[in-house]
Amino acid sequence: MFSMRDMFRSAREGTLAAVAILLFVTAAQAQSDPLPSWNDTAPKASIIAFVEKVTKEGSPEFVSEPQRIAVFDNDGTLWVEHPMYTQLAFALDRVKALAPQHPEWRTKQPFKAAIEGDMETLASSGDKGLLELLMATHAGMTVDDFQKVVTDWLSTARDPRFNRPYTELAYQPMVELLAYLRANGFKTFIVSGGGIEFMRPWTEKVYGVPPEQVVGSSIKTEFRMQDDMPTLFRLPDVNFIDDKAGKPVGINQQIGRRPIAAFGNSDGDLEMLQWTTMAGAPARLGMLVHHTDAEREYAYDRNTEFGRLDKALDAAAIAGWTVIDMKADWKTIFKD
Amino acid sequence: MFSMRDMFRSAREGTLAAVAILLFVTAAQAQSDPLPSWNDTAPKASIIAFVEKVTKEGSPEFVSEPQRIAVFDNDGTLWVEHPMYTQLAFALDRVKALAPQHPEWRTKQPFKAAIEGDMETLASSGDKGLLELLMATHAGMTVDDFQKVVTDWLSTARDPRFNRPYTELAYQPMVELLAYLRANGFKTFIVSGGGIEFMRPWTEKVYGVPPEQVVGSSIKTEFRMQDDMPTLFRLPDVNFIDDKAGKPVGINQQIGRRPIAAFGNSDGDLEMLQWTTMAGAPARLGMLVHHTDAEREYAYDRNTEFGRLDKALDAAAIAGWTVIDMKADWKTIFKD
Repeated sequence: MFSMRDMFRSAREGTLAAVAILLFVTAAQAQSDPLPSWNDTAPKASIIAFVEKVTKEGSPEFVSEPQRIAVFDNDGTLWVEHPMYTQLAFALDRVKALAPQHPEWRTKQPFKAAIEGDMETLASSGDKGLLELLMATHAGMTVDDFQKVVTDWLSTARDPRFNRPYTELAYQPMVELLAYLRANGFKTFIVSGGGIEFMRPWTEKVYGVPPEQVVGSSIKTEFRMQDDMPTLFRLPDVNFIDDKAGKPVGINQQIGRRPIAAFGNSDGDLEMLQWTTMAGAPARLGMLVHHTDAEREYAYDRNTEFGRLDKALDAAAIAGWTVIDMKADWKTIFKD
Repeated sequence: MFSMRDMFRSAREGTLAAVAILLFVTAAQAQSDPLPSWNDTAPKASIIAFVEKVTKEGSPEFVSEPQRIAVFDNDGTLWVEHPMYTQLAFALDRVKALAPQHPEWRTKQPFKAAIEGDMETLASSGDKGLLELLMATHAGMTVDDFQKVVTDWLSTARDPRFNRPYTELAYQPMVELLAYLRANGFKTFIVSGGGIEFMRPWTEKVYGVPPEQVVGSSIKTEFRMQDDMPTLFRLPDVNFIDDKAGKPVGINQQIGRRPIAAFGNSDGDLEMLQWTTMAGAPARLGMLVHHTDAEREYAYDRNTEFGRLDKALDAAAIAGWTVIDMKADWKTIFKD
């Protein structure tokens, strides 16, 4: 005959068993699901289908491992680019930090606007003003010193809305995608309009992408012997703009192979996706992150200063690129 | 009692046993010697000592795997550069092949000299003339088309002295060194003054170095949509000269890390060796191939048009770089 205590014990054991089964199932699912932050919607399915067909030996769409090159835009594709590019936030903070050494900036635009946080005047200074700010904050030091400045800034700066370090605003679904591709023999590259030396100090830690796999915009550098020590000095002179039609050029210059998968989010990525997917070969993947989630991140496309997605959105429909609807397709945006 | 036949059989068995032992010992030696084409002289010992100390965990000179970057010059360091750079032989052959489409070349220098094989007049046209030849033969087509031209040429062209395809004139000791470094967790890069797109079609096959690990000189390219297909078009305009002080710049632009080992053979490699070895860190290796073997290859240093080794030879003594005496230190030069 069962006592109340026996029944209780039995129930408890049942619960424990159920919990054990649940844990086991969850662990098994986690193991079998390489993209747990993605909802089970079309984009996730098309990623997995693509990877399976190019990695299946003997299949007509098989791609040998050295040819499995995947390229990713950075701003807006791998991490947040609103309310402004993180590199611009860095430049503005640098102007403020350097202002005491530049008393002339107090009356000189666009520096005055940057110091006062007068974003309207700053915007009205246009590309020319922006370039002046970039050169004043990014040049005039060695490559090693600039790396240290970037690393120091990132260790203390916080995104104003999310109140987190910028490097914690990497999109978790994309971080999983990078790892999933690498686990399947892909070499993953960043191909960004952002500064190559602004990215390299942290891309390995945040995305698993080493410095030699970062392609980006750059200023000129010069080799100098200083006190019998070799240095590379950063000059206030644009070397290369890795954006729009520059992206295929940068890919060819630095990688020397045509990628088989490309991921972007804006018109700046249009030519990179064309170069990658319109190669006459069967197995190519082009994807665009569409920012549709004002609640968890931001919602923008055709009308925005940072990351305009207009021509590339129209092209996606024609070229068969997958558009990721951030709100619908991503279970989580950031790592907790 | 032993018959003659028994004795003979016994002797034969003894011989077979001796042969078997010999084969075993040779195989074991081959296995334990990663650099069989190197004589047991100082350079081989210093390479092995360097690799052992940077790969030994816990040692004060241990270098983590991602930081194990080794850079190699190409012409004169990995393959033959006399009587002229192979890329120049290619350009001269291309002028001849393209001449029927350019009747004006028959009377125009330096093309006339190139067509007629008049090397003296060609040399007198200087860098300006050389650049004209390079642009006429290297630009004006897509990247894909140029790759095909290079591959086709290399499949038929023969070095006049050795009567072998140029790609068979890679130095076997250096090919072994590349493989030895990779087996020890190094990433090997080519950093050459030669054209990046001239090297990429064959470096993987010949040296095991993939296109994305080739740094070199380049002309500008332009992204174009042609008949709805994306192409990269090669323009007759210098983009980057990866030589002398340009080598550290190219290394930083494309690799983004400072190498820990550098191998060169001429003054064009001086700054690369400085940048690599003069970093204030203990474990750095700088080596120069000194062409001392007129019989098996060539002998030249301070007085030559191709691969002058003068300042870098003086610097080696001060900086502690190892100078490889080709004649004394290499058991074989080319693969049989």
